[in-house]
Amino acid sequence: MRYRAVLRAGLLLAVGALRSSRAADLMQGRALVMHGAPGITACSSCHGVNGQGNYRLGYPRLAGLDPGYIFHELESFKHFSRENAIMQPVAQRLSRVQMMDVAAWFASQKPLPPKGVHPSERTIALGEKIARRGVWSRNVPGCFTCHGPRGAGVGSRFPRLAGQYPNYLKTQLHDWRRGFRRNDPLGLMQAIASRLSHREMSAVSEFLAVDRIHGKAPALPGRRVTRLRYTRNFLPPLESAIPRGSFGAMVRQGERIFDDTPAEARRYAGNVLSCRNCHIDRGRKAGSAPMWAAYVAFPAYRVRNHKVTTIEQRIQACFRFSENGHPPPQDSRTMTALVSYFYWLAQGAPTGAEMQGRGYPPLKTPPHPPNAVSGAQIFASHCAVCHGPDGQGTRDASGSYVFPPLWGPRSYNSGADMHKVKLAAEFVRANMPYGRGGMLTAQQAWDVAAFVDSHPRPPDPRKRR
Amino acid sequence: MRYRAVLRAGLLLAVGALRSSRAADLMQGRALVMHGAPGITACSSCHGVNGQGNYRLGYPRLAGLDPGYIFHELESFKHFSRENAIMQPVAQRLSRVQMMDVAAWFASQKPLPPKGVHPSERTIALGEKIARRGVWSRNVPGCFTCHGPRGAGVGSRFPRLAGQYPNYLKTQLHDWRRGFRRNDPLGLMQAIASRLSHREMSAVSEFLAVDRIHGKAPALPGRRVTRLRYTRNFLPPLESAIPRGSFGAMVRQGERIFDDTPAEARRYAGNVLSCRNCHIDRGRKAGSAPMWAAYVAFPAYRVRNHKVTTIEQRIQACFRFSENGHPPPQDSRTMTALVSYFYWLAQGAPTGAEMQGRGYPPLKTPPHPPNAVSGAQIFASHCAVCHGPDGQGTRDASGSYVFPPLWGPRSYNSGADMHKVKLAAEFVRANMPYGRGGMLTAQQAWDVAAFVDSHPRPPDPRKRR
Repeated sequence: MRYRAVLRAGLLLAVGALRSSRAADLMQGRALVMHGAPGITACSSCHGVNGQGNYRLGYPRLAGLDPGYIFHELESFKHFSRENAIMQPVAQRLSRVQMMDVAAWFASQKPLPPKGVHPSERTIALGEKIARRGVWSRNVPGCFTCHGPRGAGVGSRFPRLAGQYPNYLKTQLHDWRRGFRRNDPLGLMQAIASRLSHREMSAVSEFLAVDRIHGKAPALPGRRVTRLRYTRNFLPPLESAIPRGSFGAMVRQGERIFDDTPAEARRYAGNVLSCRNCHIDRGRKAGSAPMWAAYVAFPAYRVRNHKVTTIEQRIQACFRFSENGHPPPQDSRTMTALVSYFYWLAQGAPTGAEMQGRGYPPLKTPPHPPNAVSGAQIFASHCAVCHGPDGQGTRDASGSYVFPPLWGPRSYNSGADMHKVKLAAEFVRANMPYGRGGMLTAQQAWDVAAFVDSHPRPPDPRKRR
Repeated sequence: MRYRAVLRAGLLLAVGALRSSRAADLMQGRALVMHGAPGITACSSCHGVNGQGNYRLGYPRLAGLDPGYIFHELESFKHFSRENAIMQPVAQRLSRVQMMDVAAWFASQKPLPPKGVHPSERTIALGEKIARRGVWSRNVPGCFTCHGPRGAGVGSRFPRLAGQYPNYLKTQLHDWRRGFRRNDPLGLMQAIASRLSHREMSAVSEFLAVDRIHGKAPALPGRRVTRLRYTRNFLPPLESAIPRGSFGAMVRQGERIFDDTPAEARRYAGNVLSCRNCHIDRGRKAGSAPMWAAYVAFPAYRVRNHKVTTIEQRIQACFRFSENGHPPPQDSRTMTALVSYFYWLAQGAPTGAEMQGRGYPPLKTPPHPPNAVSGAQIFASHCAVCHGPDGQGTRDASGSYVFPPLWGPRSYNSGADMHKVKLAAEFVRANMPYGRGGMLTAQQAWDVAAFVDSHPRPPDPRKRR
C-alpha cells in the first residue's frame, strides 16, 4: 500500500511539479543510492541503502519521508537555500530526474523505530508540550499542528519528524535560527527556532525521536484540585448598576423570578417557596448560599448525582427538590434570566474561585445529638412568630406567602438539600431568625433543624413511583 | 368585604386569644372612640373617629391596622413594654373587651391616602432601597420582606406601614433603638433600628408614607453598560494543572473536542473544521478569540440574534454555522465538556470583565476597498502552502485534515461570523500565516479575506428551505 502511495506521489511530482517526461523510477533511485554515479557519492555511504541514516553522526533518517520533500531539499542544497558542505556538491551534480528517483526510493522505505535515545522524563514532558501544544506565549505553534498528528508529516512541505534522530533535529533548529537553512515556507521554521530556547530545542528533538506515531498521548498526571481562594469580602454590584437594554432586562427578570418564584416562574414552581427564602437578600448575602459564590463554582463535580454539573443543571435541581416542581429547560427564558442574574451578581468574582461566604457557614457535629423535642420549644419561641405555630408560613391579605411553610405539601420535598439536618442547622444558625442570624446557639440550631425535619413533606421525586 | 374580614378577625381574636365570651362589638368600639368613657379620653381626640390620626402632631393613623396588632399595642402600653405618656393611662383604664372593641373599630376603617408628604427624589430612592431590599451589609432586612409587599402588613405582628405618617414612624424607630419600645418579636425591630443611621430612618419613614401599596415598583434608572476591564495579560492555567477526578476528565474531554471536533463530536460536526482552527492554541491564545475571554463575557445580548445568549447557546451557534452541523443539546455531555473546558481556562478571570485579548484585534476600514484579485495573489504566496492552492486544506496520510478547507462543502457555512470579511480580515491579520501572525499588512489581510469570501460555501441554515 505504502509503496503504491509513494509511487503515486512520485507520479504526481513528475507530472505536476517537474513536467518531466517520465515517472520516478524506483530502481534507478535504488541504484544511485547504493552505488552513486560518476562524481556522485553514493547516498548509502551516509544514509544507508534503506535510508535509516546514522544516529551517532547525525545523518538524518530519510526512509519514509515524503518524496516531494526530499526532492525539495535536494534542490535547496543545489541553490544554497540550505547550507551543508557534504550535500551541496552532491546536489549540484544530480539531475532533476535523478533527484526524483532517489527521493522516490527513500520515500518507499519503511523507517525503523528509534533506538538508543533515552531522554529523561522531564525532557520528554517538556518536549511533548512543545510538540503537541507549542509555546504560544512566544507564538510558537506545536510541531504536530503542522507536521500532523504525532509528527507523521503532512504533504511535501511539512516533513515527518517522528523517529528522526534528535541530534539531526537539533542541528536543523539551530540552522534555521542562524539562517544556514532558509528554505522554509514563509520563514515559519526560522521564526519558530528563533523563539525557542536551546533547552527547548533539545527537549523537543529528543521527544520527537522517541515518540511513537501510533501511541496514545500519555496521560498527564493531573493534580489535586486546589481552588483559588478569594478571602476578601466580595460585594456584588449595586442594583442601580444593572445596565439598560435587553441584558439588563434579563437580569431584572432573573431577580424577579428569584424574589417571587411561584408568581414569576409559575410553570416550574411546585410549591410556594421562592429562591430568596434560602438565599437571603435575593442571593446576595454572604453565608446564605449567595449566588455570586455559586456562579463561579460551576461547572463542578457533585457527589450528590455523581456528575459534572453546570450552573443550569444546579438550578434545575433546585426546582426539582427545593421548589418541588419541574426543572425549567436549559434554553427557557426562565433559565437564561436566572443565569444572567447570577452572572451579574458575580461581576468581578474570579472564575473558579472558592469565595469566602459561599454556602452556609459549616457547623461541627453538636455536643449533644440534635433533639427535636427541645427544637419544638425553640421553634415556638423563635420561629413561630413568622412561620406560624404549625410551620405553615404566613400569608398577606392577597394570599401570597410572606414567610414560607417549612414542611407539609407546600414546602420543599425530601430530596432537597435543606432536608438534611446538618445543612438546615447551618442555614438556621447563620440566618435565622430572619435579620437576627447568630441569635441561636449551634446546639439550638441543630435542635430546631431536627424538629423541622421531623415533619412530613413531599417525597423525593427520584423515589416516587 | 373588608368589614366582614375584620369582623371575622375580631371574632377569631375574641375566641382564640382572649377567651372572651363575646365577639368584638364594632358599635361599642365606635362609641368608645367617639366619646371615651368615665376616666378614659376619647380616642378620637387624637386619632379621629375614623382613625386617620394627625400628621402634624405625629399621632398615628390607626385606620386599617390589624385588630390583633392594635390590641397587642394597647396591652403593651398597659404593661410598660411600650412607653408613652399619653397612651399609658388610657390603656390602663381599658378592659380587654374594650380594647378589642376599639381595635375592631379602627381596623374596620379605610386608611386615607397620605397627603402633605413630599420627600425629595433622593430620599425616596434611599427609602425605597431600605424598604424593598434592606441593608444586608448591616443585617437589616427590607421592611417589605416582613411587613408584606409594599408594606401592607402581615398578620398581627407585622403591622401595615404604608401610608403611616413619617414623623410617627421615625419616632418609633428611635424608640426601638433607645429601648422605649420593646414589644417586638425576638427584638427584631430593636436590632434593625440600632443598625440604621438617622438619615436612613428618616428616608424609609418618608418613603413608606408616600408609597402606593398597589403601585408598580418604580423602574430603576439603569446604567449604560460599563464593563470591568482586565488589562493585564491573562494566562489560563497550565494544562498540567487540570485536576484529577471526574471534573478533570470532563475538562480533558472538552479539550479533546476542541482539538479534533469532527472526531470527538461526530454527531454534531457537519464539516472537517475543529474549534481550534479559529481559536488558536486550543482557545488559549490572546487575540485569537480565546475561550477564557468569551467565558466571562456570557450571558450577553447579541445583536446577531437579538437575544440574551448564554455560553451554551453561543457554542450551539458555532456548531450551527462554523461547524455547519447540529447544535449539541444543552444537557449533552459534549456541551458540558466544552463549558467545563472554557470555565477551566478562565480560572481566575473576573466574571463579566472585558478581557484584554478578547476576540480578534479590531481592524479599521482599510484605505482601499478589499480587493479579491490582489487577495488571490496573497493567498497563493502565503496561504496555499498549508490550505492548498484550491483552499481545500491539507490532510495527513490517515485522511484527517491538518489544515482546514477555507471554502467549499467542507468549510464553514455563510451564516458563520468568519464569513464576514471584516472578521476574517481581523483573524488573518493577527493570526495568519499560522505561527507568523502580523506578517501581512492590514490591507493584505482585508484583500485575502475578500478573496476567501468570494468562493462558494454551504448556505446559511437560517435561509435554507
